Amino acid sequence: MSDKKPSKTQVKARLPKGMRDVEAQELRALKHMLGTISEVYERYGFEPLDTPAFEYTDALGKFLPDTDRPNEGVFSFQDEDEQWVSMRYDLTAPLARYVAQNFDATPKPFRRYQTGYVYRNEKPGPGRFRQFMQFDADTVGTANPAADAEMCMLAADTLEALGLGGSYIIKVSSRTLLDTVLDAAGIDDQKKRLVVLRAVDKFDRLGVPGVSDLLGKGRKDESGDFTPGADLAPAQANAVLALLTGEAPSDAAIATIIELVRGAGFGEDRIRFDPTVVRGLEYYTGPVFEAELTFPATDESGQAVRFGSVGGGGRYDGLVSRFRSQPVPATGFSIGVSRLYAALSHLGKIDAAKAAGPVVVLVMDKARVGDYQRMAKQLRDADIRAEMYVGEAGMKAQMKYADKRGSPCVIIQGEDERAKGEVTIKDLLEGSRLSGEISDHAEWKEARPAQFSVSEDDLVAAVQKLLAEQAKA
Amino acid sequence: MSDKKPSKTQVKARLPKGMRDVEAQELRALKHMLGTISEVYERYGFEPLDTPAFEYTDALGKFLPDTDRPNEGVFSFQDEDEQWVSMRYDLTAPLARYVAQNFDATPKPFRRYQTGYVYRNEKPGPGRFRQFMQFDADTVGTANPAADAEMCMLAADTLEALGLGGSYIIKVSSRTLLDTVLDAAGIDDQKKRLVVLRAVDKFDRLGVPGVSDLLGKGRKDESGDFTPGADLAPAQANAVLALLTGEAPSDAAIATIIELVRGAGFGEDRIRFDPTVVRGLEYYTGPVFEAELTFPATDESGQAVRFGSVGGGGRYDGLVSRFRSQPVPATGFSIGVSRLYAALSHLGKIDAAKAAGPVVVLVMDKARVGDYQRMAKQLRDADIRAEMYVGEAGMKAQMKYADKRGSPCVIIQGEDERAKGEVTIKDLLEGSRLSGEISDHAEWKEARPAQFSVSEDDLVAAVQKLLAEQAKA
Repeated sequence: MSDKKPSKTQVKARLPKGMRDVEAQELRALKHMLGTISEVYERYGFEPLDTPAFEYTDALGKFLPDTDRPNEGVFSFQDEDEQWVSMRYDLTAPLARYVAQNFDATPKPFRRYQTGYVYRNEKPGPGRFRQFMQFDADTVGTANPAADAEMCMLAADTLEALGLGGSYIIKVSSRTLLDTVLDAAGIDDQKKRLVVLRAVDKFDRLGVPGVSDLLGKGRKDESGDFTPGADLAPAQANAVLALLTGEAPSDAAIATIIELVRGAGFGEDRIRFDPTVVRGLEYYTGPVFEAELTFPATDESGQAVRFGSVGGGGRYDGLVSRFRSQPVPATGFSIGVSRLYAALSHLGKIDAAKAAGPVVVLVMDKARVGDYQRMAKQLRDADIRAEMYVGEAGMKAQMKYADKRGSPCVIIQGEDERAKGEVTIKDLLEGSRLSGEISDHAEWKEARPAQFSVSEDDLVAAVQKLLAEQAKA
Repeated sequence: MSDKKPSKTQVKARLPKGMRDVEAQELRALKHMLGTISEVYERYGFEPLDTPAFEYTDALGKFLPDTDRPNEGVFSFQDEDEQWVSMRYDLTAPLARYVAQNFDATPKPFRRYQTGYVYRNEKPGPGRFRQFMQFDADTVGTANPAADAEMCMLAADTLEALGLGGSYIIKVSSRTLLDTVLDAAGIDDQKKRLVVLRAVDKFDRLGVPGVSDLLGKGRKDESGDFTPGADLAPAQANAVLALLTGEAPSDAAIATIIELVRGAGFGEDRIRFDPTVVRGLEYYTGPVFEAELTFPATDESGQAVRFGSVGGGGRYDGLVSRFRSQPVPATGFSIGVSRLYAALSHLGKIDAAKAAGPVVVLVMDKARVGDYQRMAKQLRDADIRAEMYVGEAGMKAQMKYADKRGSPCVIIQGEDERAKGEVTIKDLLEGSRLSGEISDHAEWKEARPAQFSVSEDDLVAAVQKLLAEQAKA
């Protein structure tokens, strides 16, 4: 922050509410994580696809969990033809539009994966952003439960590939189980059924008391926000709660899915039936899945909880049919990338080491910038990350810059070195190691950070050797 | 297209105007291309950054080439606090916001690269979309011409790494050259200067006649659209045209840049001075660069032209200072990814071969889906791309599906094979090669596509062997 008062014409530099920048270290780790997920999805035979960030609002439809938010949960605006467009709130609705638009050209079943940012016009909170990344796989054009079973296996294998073996469970249930209970209890109103659905979806987090409130008059959360309930009669609410806490009723599709995954060698410890899974999205029509991480974590109020969901999905047989006269059954699975990244960080599965910074060639004499640039180029040509310092500050600030960049070493050629046809290489990692080991200040001042001189011609070879030694240490 | 009339509730599946989907083959090639660019940028010491898709409108500012378009060239809407937000139209304005917001935490100079989609609310046309990708590198916090020189070298090395050696030129000029001419000609009105700037920027495409029109009353293009001109007096217009066609005036910054790049070994054939480069963006304040591909192509009307610009940049010393009381000089270079991709495709530098499709395990007996799934899993566990057919169609449709997916082979186990403990592997590439070689229909019918049976236990080894043989052929 500057202590000067900003002038009238100055603009305040700030991010829009609920948005964030992603910096180098996280981006590199994310890239690695997305690469691992892609590999698994490719191995399962899925093909990549990319759709634009926004769609016509009517083509996208509105299938969000929280439609009682302002702007109904999506960011929308009118284009110059006064047609409404909305930023995608997930990757499934755009996929439905794509398949319907390219129906004859796509092989059936159509199997695609996609990763990208989605946008929600919702109240931001800790770890809850308005732009976040999803990673989806979907199979469109088949009602075969084998496709659902495959989604569960794909999810399990993906978490395994990310090093989460033993720490996750893929839960399977079916939306039709809840539908049966609702029908039997005489709850016909579609809006009321949706409120029940969302209440049940929170069972994991709120337990019986919280869901009871949401099935009844409503619930006030810790922040004081009130969510209106479904206003069920006590007998109706009890019938719903019995599904969540009681014995599992039978369901043919689920039985087939479980049989298939067992046949392929996925045990109870990786994929299992769990009637509490319903998924909040309105468009699911049959089997639903949830990927849950089972290791302990603490929630916002410091209480020990399971880490929880990092993804989910299910069968949505109506989404593509919105555009077509014939039915187009489909199923899919979506990973919440930021959630998963947070889990991997929490477990120390993200390599927290910073990527090595560039070798920095210092500018000792402004008249000789061409020579320094040539040295940087020589290093780059040998595939070494290197830059000449392009700022305008003196030696001390240049050293500070190299430190801040995490440079392994700097290259120095002053007048003396030049006269001898030499360059000095200053090992910054050695320097910081020494300063960490030596506690006595006087001793530290004497312990000169390792530096040595070599002939100009040996610059590249000497840096290569140093980097190799640093990598070993 | 369905020949049934859509029912009333049906929505038409369509992309918003100026938007496109990117499919598997292009996505894979794009990923490879972006990887190559990243490698060069990393080697130069730049760090990755990602900023959100939209920003507060006032923080983004309006620095677009065509502000006379509806909605002023950007997509904007109000959030629930009634603050205006706009989708980013480039990656430079968000970078300026980022640096200003995180000023003390960033090393100076700050060197970052970023790739991502940007959005323009402009008239779409052939090859002109409202969402397209840019790939930027910027150095913020130094007025040193060495940073500008480095941008030119970075651009040249990037095009070289993409296999474009000998087919590109990085042109360098300076915005101050034009400013000097405009001052001397007494053209003081800022709006008029901007119109001149944009006219000059089109010199490459429109030549002297087109630019003359745009410096005068205006120009009607082939589609009949009229662009109003700067309405200069003839003497003023001639002074501007003289800059484009005459001798190069001297400029200290440009002289230094050229000296530095020559010193680093970049010749006239890769980087050179060219006074016609001005870049249409208002925010440039000094040296400007343009990366041009020099190989012949044809324009929309079939005329032979150079392929043209695939990127550009320059110094913009005022962009970060909008947010701060002190000056923050900066320079950068931006690649138009789609343009560059088109160029590489045109030159055959994009590997047009489709990625190998998955091995498909056919479902011969629906009761034995578990067995087929296990075979697919065995293949995947050996790192072979493989899937069990999860649709619901018969044998013939399954074969057609495998063909459409570009599968190298299918795995078949009917009743006979099962009884013998065998599987049949049908080589689809061999089949299509044969059908290409054999022109006689009868002969083709007899030439049975290569297929062979192996013991169940040898499935993985046999497929591995086949894939290796296919790769050799």
